[in-house]
Amino acid sequence: MTQPTATRFATPALDKLPEDIRTRVLAVQEKSGFVPNVFLTLAYRPDEFRAFFAYHDALMEKESGLSKAEREMIVVATSAANQCQYCVIAHGAILRIRAKNPLIADQIAVNYRKADITPRQRAMLDFAMKVSRAAEEVAEADFAALAAHGFSDDDVWDIAAVAAFFALSNRLANVIGMRPNDEFYMLGRQPK
Amino acid sequence: MTQPTATRFATPALDKLPEDIRTRVLAVQEKSGFVPNVFLTLAYRPDEFRAFFAYHDALMEKESGLSKAEREMIVVATSAANQCQYCVIAHGAILRIRAKNPLIADQIAVNYRKADITPRQRAMLDFAMKVSRAAEEVAEADFAALAAHGFSDDDVWDIAAVAAFFALSNRLANVIGMRPNDEFYMLGRQPK
Amino acid sequence: MTQPTATRFATPALDKLPEDIRTRVLAVQEKSGFVPNVFLTLAYRPDEFRAFFAYHDALMEKESGLSKAEREMIVVATSAANQCQYCVIAHGAILRIRAKNPLIADQIAVNYRKADITPRQRAMLDFAMKVSRAAEEVAEADFAALAAHGFSDDDVWDIAAVAAFFALSNRLANVIGMRPNDEFYMLGRQPK
Amino acid sequence: MTQPTATRFATPALDKLPEDIRTRVLAVQEKSGFVPNVFLTLAYRPDEFRAFFAYHDALMEKESGLSKAEREMIVVATSAANQCQYCVIAHGAILRIRAKNPLIADQIAVNYRKADITPRQRAMLDFAMKVSRAAEEVAEADFAALAAHGFSDDDVWDIAAVAAFFALSNRLANVIGMRPNDEFYMLGRQPK
Amino acid sequence: MTQPTATRFATPALDKLPEDIRTRVLAVQEKSGFVPNVFLTLAYRPDEFRAFFAYHDALMEKESGLSKAEREMIVVATSAANQCQYCVIAHGAILRIRAKNPLIADQIAVNYRKADITPRQRAMLDFAMKVSRAAEEVAEADFAALAAHGFSDDDVWDIAAVAAFFALSNRLANVIGMRPNDEFYMLGRQPK
Amino acid sequence: MTQPTATRFATPALDKLPEDIRTRVLAVQEKSGFVPNVFLTLAYRPDEFRAFFAYHDALMEKESGLSKAEREMIVVATSAANQCQYCVIAHGAILRIRAKNPLIADQIAVNYRKADITPRQRAMLDFAMKVSRAAEEVAEADFAALAAHGFSDDDVWDIAAVAAFFALSNRLANVIGMRPNDEFYMLGRQPK
Repeated sequence: MTQPTATRFATPALDKLPEDIRTRVLAVQEKSGFVPNVFLTLAYRPDEFRAFFAYHDALMEKESGLSKAEREMIVVATSAANQCQYCVIAHGAILRIRAKNPLIADQIAVNYRKADITPRQRAMLDFAMKVSRAAEEVAEADFAALAAHGFSDDDVWDIAAVAAFFALSNRLANVIGMRPNDEFYMLGRQPK
Repeated sequence: MTQPTATRFATPALDKLPEDIRTRVLAVQEKSGFVPNVFLTLAYRPDEFRAFFAYHDALMEKESGLSKAEREMIVVATSAANQCQYCVIAHGAILRIRAKNPLIADQIAVNYRKADITPRQRAMLDFAMKVSRAAEEVAEADFAALAAHGFSDDDVWDIAAVAAFFALSNRLANVIGMRPNDEFYMLGRQPK
Repeated sequence: MTQPTATRFATPALDKLPEDIRTRVLAVQEKSGFVPNVFLTLAYRPDEFRAFFAYHDALMEKESGLSKAEREMIVVATSAANQCQYCVIAHGAILRIRAKNPLIADQIAVNYRKADITPRQRAMLDFAMKVSRAAEEVAEADFAALAAHGFSDDDVWDIAAVAAFFALSNRLANVIGMRPNDEFYMLGRQPK
Repeated sequence: MTQPTATRFATPALDKLPEDIRTRVLAVQEKSGFVPNVFLTLAYRPDEFRAFFAYHDALMEKESGLSKAEREMIVVATSAANQCQYCVIAHGAILRIRAKNPLIADQIAVNYRKADITPRQRAMLDFAMKVSRAAEEVAEADFAALAAHGFSDDDVWDIAAVAAFFALSNRLANVIGMRPNDEFYMLGRQPK
Repeated sequence: MTQPTATRFATPALDKLPEDIRTRVLAVQEKSGFVPNVFLTLAYRPDEFRAFFAYHDALMEKESGLSKAEREMIVVATSAANQCQYCVIAHGAILRIRAKNPLIADQIAVNYRKADITPRQRAMLDFAMKVSRAAEEVAEADFAALAAHGFSDDDVWDIAAVAAFFALSNRLANVIGMRPNDEFYMLGRQPK
Repeated sequence: MTQPTATRFATPALDKLPEDIRTRVLAVQEKSGFVPNVFLTLAYRPDEFRAFFAYHDALMEKESGLSKAEREMIVVATSAANQCQYCVIAHGAILRIRAKNPLIADQIAVNYRKADITPRQRAMLDFAMKVSRAAEEVAEADFAALAAHGFSDDDVWDIAAVAAFFALSNRLANVIGMRPNDEFYMLGRQPK
């Protein structure tokens, strides 16, 4: 593991981590074959690490009216608008895998309005982008546009909460200078 | 409790809340004399509620090189830039109380550059605002400006993390239409 | 009167003011119990002072299809967008008094779209904000939206003229570093 | 006088104007050979008319450390940024006449940074533009930059006040749809 | 020819130019009575010069559903938004001549929304401005608005291509500091 | 070739193209194994096609103080800021190949400030981004920053001209809805 993990803040050594955090990191490593840098860099602050991943999992891992791929679309679109290198490249990989589509992440990252998505997904991303970039202007017309595509109140909450959580995540990663692991760039690019 | 709590999403009844959440809500009510609407509205999603407040407490309640009043300054300045009514009015009250200063919150909310704060606090808020509004442009010169005022790496993380956490919080509150309780407006306005 | 009045430009002594200006200042002091700093700081230039207050009074004191409270709403909303500390805090106090509502000024200052106002007042503020921030784009659709709420041509002029006058006032106050008097913060916050 | 004066609000007939306003209008007509539309359109509100021109004259006609041509440069630069057709075209004419330079107004209107002006005038316009577009960010460094070019406190006030007054004027003209008289376009274009 | 041609990059001497370029320059001089600085400054790079003018002529000189005056309107409106002094002043002159209208160029340069143009031309400029300033947001609704005014697909291409070509041209001229020749300012201002 | 080439404007059939254009298209196909959609979509207008590629080649294929990879960095960074899907994905592939670096294009597309490039390349991209996004503000300090990294006048011209040419290209591609060919996504991602 000789790639740097971030440009700022010391990354704690794996054997110095609290037990629960080390266990989580090792589990991720087992599953993915490498440790994504977000786990190592955020471990700088164990309590914040625990809250961050509890929040992340509550939004991204649970059952929802939005598919997991759709939730990753929100991450990629809003993180690109916030110019977060780690989030776009790491979650771009996850999106390719979850959507089983090697093209979708790059399309959404550059301009989601031109991506190969459904009109319903386009409405979802329009709302997510407004939450990410101008939440103070969210109004009834925005909710009506979502309802017209069949999104429930719970779906609306999910869209907003994912966009809001990555508003946090993007800012942390940009300040830390969190680097995407080299492994992410190729993940999901080749059909299996 | 006849004031509305928010303009969207059903607020769960107190007696329907999971035990741990109800306990926390009642403890706040005991201490403050009322239940801030953020507790009621976010209880719509118990898992997210738990992560949200765990994160909040990890940042705002712990020991830090920043005083609690200074952390509230960050909340008020960035939440005003994000036009979050709940956050500015509720945390404005907390800031007045923690700083024992009835004027500071309104000054910071309107234009932190003109507030009665120290040059060190001004540098802290300049950085917090950049994290909140243009984190993608954070660069070495920003860290150097903080170091020149004696901020440690841990302090820098704290400033960034508070600004980032309220980037999340402001977006949630704006989408939910979370209303500040009437009680907040007068809190801390009169010297005791 | 040991509070500073502004961060730049010498504030003239009361007994050095031209007779007509001193008379006005003393009348305000008699009525309010203190001299708002706008009177002292603008007296640096007697001719501009006279024109400024003549304009102010022509807009804010006369009979109008807009109530005095509504005109103060325009001042608070646009001054907050322009980050003018003096104008938001001083006119926030006046708005609370004129509307007999201790909450309205803080709500409008942070995000007028979420304030407890009527749809007609919301339309009024939408237009005022457009005049304040993007007058070059004002178009027929804006006038039609106002007409749909029953605003007359004279009302439209009033909304625009108040927003325009405070575009001037906000800039002067920000350059001068005009400080809101301590007295303003508490005015109108307690129901009588 | 068959050219329209504005796209909105009725222009009062000359013989219906209050005596003092009609006298001023006739004096302008005598001097200029035509009545600039700003006089006719603002006469819709006599009290505001009187305050507007009293303010205008206090800034633009008096003795100042800034030449009259320099004050018109401020008007043209800031009015162009605010996309005010009347102000750019009418004051562009006045600037050409006062500066005895047929090229300067068009240069400043399009991009003042490329205009044939002195470094001192460039500093003056940099400050005026900041007052016009981001007065909330005016800071010590801005005043220091002006002092380095020898501007006195009174000069600084003048620059700010002219920029602020035309922030008002530009908004009124854009809402009214005030039209520049055809006569302005050619004024001052040919050396005498 | 003692006026400077630009603030940066050496302007090649006429007799050092490649034969084809010198021929073109002399032809322009013969026709116009002077050599517009765009020809001299871009000759710094002969191959780019040839491609630039080939592209320019393919768009601006050919038969089109848009009149030549309309194409110049697009140039003036978008170049003003990009603050390109050379393009606004030189093409303003061409627009006055082609439209046989001494007022139109200044009106469009300051605020095309207030210019004396037809609703069809207004729709053309709305689209051109979107292409120039936010092409990434161009969507079906924009094409529908053009179709409603009778613009064909070829017309839409022309509007977009002219706006796009001057996005290139404006940037080159601003970097080079290309100066408009003195002759342009008066061209087309007097009816013949 | 069943992938669509663009969302708007008819793509001409290969056998209907003028001889010189068909020859170029076939040569590209021979070399690349597929026809990039920019060739097919721009062939809608043969004269503009010829000028476009003549300009492109004059900038991108010639000898220069900037390496071909560096010129592609400029394309990717500015096209990402302009949200041009075709340009980022197609030129991202070319950049990976020319730089023999499978990571660099994604890094630069998301946030060039965090990419693994030299300080000299960073200065080059800072200038290119200013030309692309705010050329009207380019000033002496920008040229001095480039000179400090050893860029010659010719290099400065190249940086500016590439950024300016893709300002044109990005706008055309966004209006046309030009689609990146599927082949581009994987090109250059695997070290050979």
